[in-house]
Amino acid sequence: MAHRLTSDARGVYIISATPFTDEGAVDHESLKRLVAFYGEKGVTGITILGMMGEAPKLSLTESHGVIDTVMAAVAGALPVVVGVSSAGIDNLSALADYAMEKGAAGVMVAPNAAMKTETGILATFEAIAARLAGVPLVYQDFPLSTAMPISPAAFGALVNAVPSVAMLKHEDWPGLSKLTAIRAAEAKGQRRVSILTGNGGLYLPQELARGADGAMTGFAFPEMLVEVVRRHQAGDPGGAEDLFDAYLPLVRHEQQPGFGLAVRKEILRRRGIIASAAVRAPGPKLDGVAHDELTRLMARLERRLGEGPTAKAA
Amino acid sequence: MAHRLTSDARGVYIISATPFTDEGAVDHESLKRLVAFYGEKGVTGITILGMMGEAPKLSLTESHGVIDTVMAAVAGALPVVVGVSSAGIDNLSALADYAMEKGAAGVMVAPNAAMKTETGILATFEAIAARLAGVPLVYQDFPLSTAMPISPAAFGALVNAVPSVAMLKHEDWPGLSKLTAIRAAEAKGQRRVSILTGNGGLYLPQELARGADGAMTGFAFPEMLVEVVRRHQAGDPGGAEDLFDAYLPLVRHEQQPGFGLAVRKEILRRRGIIASAAVRAPGPKLDGVAHDELTRLMARLERRLGEGPTAKAA
Amino acid sequence: MAHRLTSDARGVYIISATPFTDEGAVDHESLKRLVAFYGEKGVTGITILGMMGEAPKLSLTESHGVIDTVMAAVAGALPVVVGVSSAGIDNLSALADYAMEKGAAGVMVAPNAAMKTETGILATFEAIAARLAGVPLVYQDFPLSTAMPISPAAFGALVNAVPSVAMLKHEDWPGLSKLTAIRAAEAKGQRRVSILTGNGGLYLPQELARGADGAMTGFAFPEMLVEVVRRHQAGDPGGAEDLFDAYLPLVRHEQQPGFGLAVRKEILRRRGIIASAAVRAPGPKLDGVAHDELTRLMARLERRLGEGPTAKAA
Amino acid sequence: MAHRLTSDARGVYIISATPFTDEGAVDHESLKRLVAFYGEKGVTGITILGMMGEAPKLSLTESHGVIDTVMAAVAGALPVVVGVSSAGIDNLSALADYAMEKGAAGVMVAPNAAMKTETGILATFEAIAARLAGVPLVYQDFPLSTAMPISPAAFGALVNAVPSVAMLKHEDWPGLSKLTAIRAAEAKGQRRVSILTGNGGLYLPQELARGADGAMTGFAFPEMLVEVVRRHQAGDPGGAEDLFDAYLPLVRHEQQPGFGLAVRKEILRRRGIIASAAVRAPGPKLDGVAHDELTRLMARLERRLGEGPTAKAA
Repeated sequence: MAHRLTSDARGVYIISATPFTDEGAVDHESLKRLVAFYGEKGVTGITILGMMGEAPKLSLTESHGVIDTVMAAVAGALPVVVGVSSAGIDNLSALADYAMEKGAAGVMVAPNAAMKTETGILATFEAIAARLAGVPLVYQDFPLSTAMPISPAAFGALVNAVPSVAMLKHEDWPGLSKLTAIRAAEAKGQRRVSILTGNGGLYLPQELARGADGAMTGFAFPEMLVEVVRRHQAGDPGGAEDLFDAYLPLVRHEQQPGFGLAVRKEILRRRGIIASAAVRAPGPKLDGVAHDELTRLMARLERRLGEGPTAKAA
Repeated sequence: MAHRLTSDARGVYIISATPFTDEGAVDHESLKRLVAFYGEKGVTGITILGMMGEAPKLSLTESHGVIDTVMAAVAGALPVVVGVSSAGIDNLSALADYAMEKGAAGVMVAPNAAMKTETGILATFEAIAARLAGVPLVYQDFPLSTAMPISPAAFGALVNAVPSVAMLKHEDWPGLSKLTAIRAAEAKGQRRVSILTGNGGLYLPQELARGADGAMTGFAFPEMLVEVVRRHQAGDPGGAEDLFDAYLPLVRHEQQPGFGLAVRKEILRRRGIIASAAVRAPGPKLDGVAHDELTRLMARLERRLGEGPTAKAA
Repeated sequence: MAHRLTSDARGVYIISATPFTDEGAVDHESLKRLVAFYGEKGVTGITILGMMGEAPKLSLTESHGVIDTVMAAVAGALPVVVGVSSAGIDNLSALADYAMEKGAAGVMVAPNAAMKTETGILATFEAIAARLAGVPLVYQDFPLSTAMPISPAAFGALVNAVPSVAMLKHEDWPGLSKLTAIRAAEAKGQRRVSILTGNGGLYLPQELARGADGAMTGFAFPEMLVEVVRRHQAGDPGGAEDLFDAYLPLVRHEQQPGFGLAVRKEILRRRGIIASAAVRAPGPKLDGVAHDELTRLMARLERRLGEGPTAKAA
Repeated sequence: MAHRLTSDARGVYIISATPFTDEGAVDHESLKRLVAFYGEKGVTGITILGMMGEAPKLSLTESHGVIDTVMAAVAGALPVVVGVSSAGIDNLSALADYAMEKGAAGVMVAPNAAMKTETGILATFEAIAARLAGVPLVYQDFPLSTAMPISPAAFGALVNAVPSVAMLKHEDWPGLSKLTAIRAAEAKGQRRVSILTGNGGLYLPQELARGADGAMTGFAFPEMLVEVVRRHQAGDPGGAEDLFDAYLPLVRHEQQPGFGLAVRKEILRRRGIIASAAVRAPGPKLDGVAHDELTRLMARLERRLGEGPTAKAA
């Protein structure tokens, strides 16, 4: 039976990269390995065709191909969320329909600048939800990229008006007080949604402490995300943060806008998961200096994981 | 033999609307009538899949369909330019290849915010031109929409570095001094390109006086654009401007960002060319007040064309 | 007794330019002549230190000087609105206090990008209104410049939450349907505010038809604005629009962002009102081509006013 | 004798906060303590009236007061750079003159969106440099805040055209490859400038490795910045990074846009340097949850500094 995203989702939904061959084609073999890798590291779900999956640079045929490969590789073991943001509702809805027919658990939509205001966001999401009757929605709140912020109050109005919004992908920046404000509003009766945090995980311990249900981001060491969330939810926030801090230099390195995707793919390549770190043009590429820099950061991580109280994640 | 856009192109390249049925499908019958209408009104060329053609809201299949229908309807009688802007070069290049194979005269590309700087624009256009070896390029300079301005100096560098740039679609705002600066640089040796102006035509007489070769815009009365350019090029700038001024209230009305597309389509509908004024969601729609307002403006145009020295255009 | 802006304000509040000498100092003699000129042309009020008054390029001492000179020149004959927008509430409030002490009728405030959302606008205006207890506020809605749009619904919430908001300076673009939406909400009980429209007056006839109370803009022929509003309010919208259309080529020319201010000042200079058309650096300057272009447009206006039904304004 | 900023400046120029009383006035006593504190911690220079110094929310009188107090407190012991960015060159130049007369070593200027393009940046900085004949300039490259990026190539052109540019405040993001590109261009003959990095110090070890001369940022533990730069320049990049990593959780916490300033001031308050953490309205404020979060992060830092190899900074 198909997974279906609900507002009590927790854990780590990893944002999947989209691997390409050096020649630029979608590399389905690497994609299968990547899905297996994410599963082995213990993620709760997988999100595909997000911004960090280079979705805007895929053709529709390629997007369908990515959905097909991932759904087949997951084989029902994990819920899959599919990014479907688009300038027009027709394209958005057609891709969402395709994804849901293939067994996706829900779709992720980011607002865009054409919506102009919070009032415009609300109206557009009402129209989207009406078209996608019943499809669970993830609201991607990432103003650094979308240039379309929303306040906690307006998000509350959206949640109340659009019952199919099941989850907030929280990556406003700064966003900590927003997270607290939403949980506070829920305590006063606003419908509760799942909140998974993005931003490369840069504030994950703080976000968990403020009520996040986990993470939805694509850090190339998903085992850290999984273990940090596990420790936190097991009542060990200090242990969670110790582990997190060990990885923080790399989290920060990978979170550089644009450039970080090349770093992320290179780490996945070095770890033997994907065959090439290629990013679609126009896009960043590591040069020799950047390779050495990454080597050094990864070596420092290894050394630190071998030390003291942080105990290497599984 | 196929038309091929060159840097001495002149006249009016009309930006074609993309007609939809009331149910939202591309209306190919209306599109054929629209092409015929543009031809009858004397345009020099047709530009399809631009922003005002709602290109970002079409599926790739629909975009191909629009190209097919227009190329068939034009039947070689006019050059057709195809907008191919996209976030990634792969998608851009695939659409450009499709268009050129079908007989397009060239493709139009706008910069985007990911290019960040003039230096970034130049690098990206060099990459695009390398991929589209030899395909004539129109550079769409429309910062109000793209948020990516370019100075005359940097445009000159682009023209020199990328020989396939044949035309500037000039719609910076303010842009009059830019036009003059480019022509001045050409007088000093910079490679000359065709400059057709956009912005709904709002400054057409001034732009022609400053050296524009014509217009590339989508005003719903293409006969005005054609006749203004004709009079100007025939040595009658005063007569050109008299006619232009008669239409200016409607030019200005149609040039409202976003909303103006709904006005344009409604005028084309009222003129009997397209069956529906539908704009894809999310998009504007005329309400009763807006319909009455347009009726009044069109009646005033009729009255004015019946008067004095402006002599109705063919 | 001091004027005090109220929500039933009507007519033309001219946005005053700030004249400089060729050496760049505020030219108080020209400013006095300008105020006299505006008064002779029949404006209802004067707005100073707006964006087109180059307020952000004045020192605080100069801003005080402009207020002093204008208040003295007006001598109580007309209400004066003072633009006081600032990054911080302390500076805003200090300037507002100065203006009100000198006899201003109210102050104008534009939202800024730091407010981020409609919710942020509301919160900030509540804070501003609390600081400026009772001072009549004009909300300047000019997203093209501020990058901070507001929907009719959110503006309604603002009007209800902040009783001191007396007026909307309406210059969203497109903004016609917003104007109608606000008037419709007022018909259903929302507190009525005065709506004066900006945008250089580009849509003045349409805006009056949709319920605007007049204009607040700085066109260099204020007699046109005054007469158009007068005719419209006297029940002659057709006559109003006839006159407007005669000036429209120049309205459009003056409304070019940034550059238009240099045009406006040059017209005022040619009309003998201000001594120099200098704009503060960095800012636009007319070159020879631009001067000739303006000469031609002004000659065409003269010719047209001498013709047919438009009957020159007083 | 007055210090004068040169292109071989190195070390840590701390970005000074501007302390306010709880009532909102500039707190000069706290400011004096802050200057003394920075000196005790070993900074090389002090930068005042930057964005994080809330310069846009000060009146001109207050800005003068800050300059006066800091120059008196520094008493010639350290070079002081003064932020003078402004919408107009007159205001910018007047503030720069004031600062230089009072003994500043140079002034810092950020580009703004009105400059539009790299070509516009160059032209404006040429005009600024001409007005400030000979005053050493720091170019603040902070597109996240200014929305005005510059490429390494265009920065090189600027350096060549404007000899008074002595320093780059490097805080583009991502910016690592830019730093390397500038140093590479210098190796090929471009005039060398000092590069101090900002961004809260988030990538300081990587930036030093790529050729930065130090930091210009405002982290509330300046001793970390000083010691990291010292170790790096003493040939111990590993030791530098060990220390840095211990502070990284707080660096990241303080680097949240907007909100981070409230964090920074609260840390300075807790350390006994400034009397109040007040930020000017509209601005952020820590609530109870944020206070507890900070307490926890500071305790974790203390614990970590007590451990293993990072050896507490002096």
